[in-house]
Amino acid sequence: MTFVDLTHPLIDGQPCYPGDPVPQIKPFDTLAEAGFNTTRFAMGTHQGTHLDAPFHFFRDGTTVDKIPLGTLYGPAELVDLAPGGAFGRGAKISRQMLEHHGQSFHEGARVLCSTGWDQHFGREEFYQSYPSLTTEAAQWIVHQGIRLIGMDTPSPAEDFEEVHKILLGAGVIIIEALANLSSLPRQFTFAAFPLRIKGRDGSPVRAVAIVD
Amino acid sequence: MTFVDLTHPLIDGQPCYPGDPVPQIKPFDTLAEAGFNTTRFAMGTHQGTHLDAPFHFFRDGTTVDKIPLGTLYGPAELVDLAPGGAFGRGAKISRQMLEHHGQSFHEGARVLCSTGWDQHFGREEFYQSYPSLTTEAAQWIVHQGIRLIGMDTPSPAEDFEEVHKILLGAGVIIIEALANLSSLPRQFTFAAFPLRIKGRDGSPVRAVAIVD
Repeated sequence: MTFVDLTHPLIDGQPCYPGDPVPQIKPFDTLAEAGFNTTRFAMGTHQGTHLDAPFHFFRDGTTVDKIPLGTLYGPAELVDLAPGGAFGRGAKISRQMLEHHGQSFHEGARVLCSTGWDQHFGREEFYQSYPSLTTEAAQWIVHQGIRLIGMDTPSPAEDFEEVHKILLGAGVIIIEALANLSSLPRQFTFAAFPLRIKGRDGSPVRAVAIVD
Repeated sequence: MTFVDLTHPLIDGQPCYPGDPVPQIKPFDTLAEAGFNTTRFAMGTHQGTHLDAPFHFFRDGTTVDKIPLGTLYGPAELVDLAPGGAFGRGAKISRQMLEHHGQSFHEGARVLCSTGWDQHFGREEFYQSYPSLTTEAAQWIVHQGIRLIGMDTPSPAEDFEEVHKILLGAGVIIIEALANLSSLPRQFTFAAFPLRIKGRDGSPVRAVAIVD
């Protein structure tokens, strides 16, 4: 059993989604003064590698603390949309591109889509002109009945409202800004448990692949 | 496969370890104004159900982002120290009490110790006069070669410096303030992945048991 860390590091002052709170990670107690180290951290729920709960876009949507743990852990599949390369700025991910990997998008599946965009994480460019699902691609994902979709982009689509509403409105959980997808085999066990933040919209996660 | 959530909810303003930052969890964007909900949260790395990394007490200790993922996931055992009840204020957990469950404390084991103290979580009393490992109990844990110890108390000992240093100094990872241990069978798969906070001392976790 080996582990692949699919999570970007959280670093004080790193870029965040435009308009989100800039993350702060500061020593609070120090060995020199208190005899131990502690840290105070402050950030938005959508910082770095994170999970979107339906409440992100829906008043009555499931909140992050109520997502069934069985959705967030189990067999998963990698769909490599840009094998051996990476999508460029403004690329569109169409329904046809996903249908090419149709066997991975089965009822109840957890699917992580690799575009190579994670190479830009940690810079402002990560949040600009990133590869985006089309509306039709998002509708097809819902039609296939998958329960969780992961992306290596900051959001499933730059035109984010419509695509988020299609996915979250159907109860599809979204994991965003995944790292190291290129290290994955086609099948593995995925775990991405959010913090149990009561009644809210999302959380950073430590996303992990467990490979047999 | 069923899941047991071993995590207390994170709630705005809930009590924290004396001297730690009071947790803040506040709406940032709202559906009414922005069309979506987001949250800004701020807390200490030792809030609620959380993990202590060796860097908490040691300048050159492993930081939370560097703990091998294989330490944090795998077979684990419940040791019920107060079957059918709960320890009272100021209780000591002695080496002899642990030795009574000696078969669970084997080389490389992950052991979660139930004292029933989690019933006080969410009130200031949780952080006062909680059951504590003796120095000799902590030394025995290290001697047995276990890799991870979980407690339902806010810390392994109220006289925290010495016991933390014995455990963390030997590289034993500590999970604190676990919930719902009374719902567990004796053996299960445990997962408690911290946020990937670069170079720091700990992190809240979503601790989960996966029961076959």
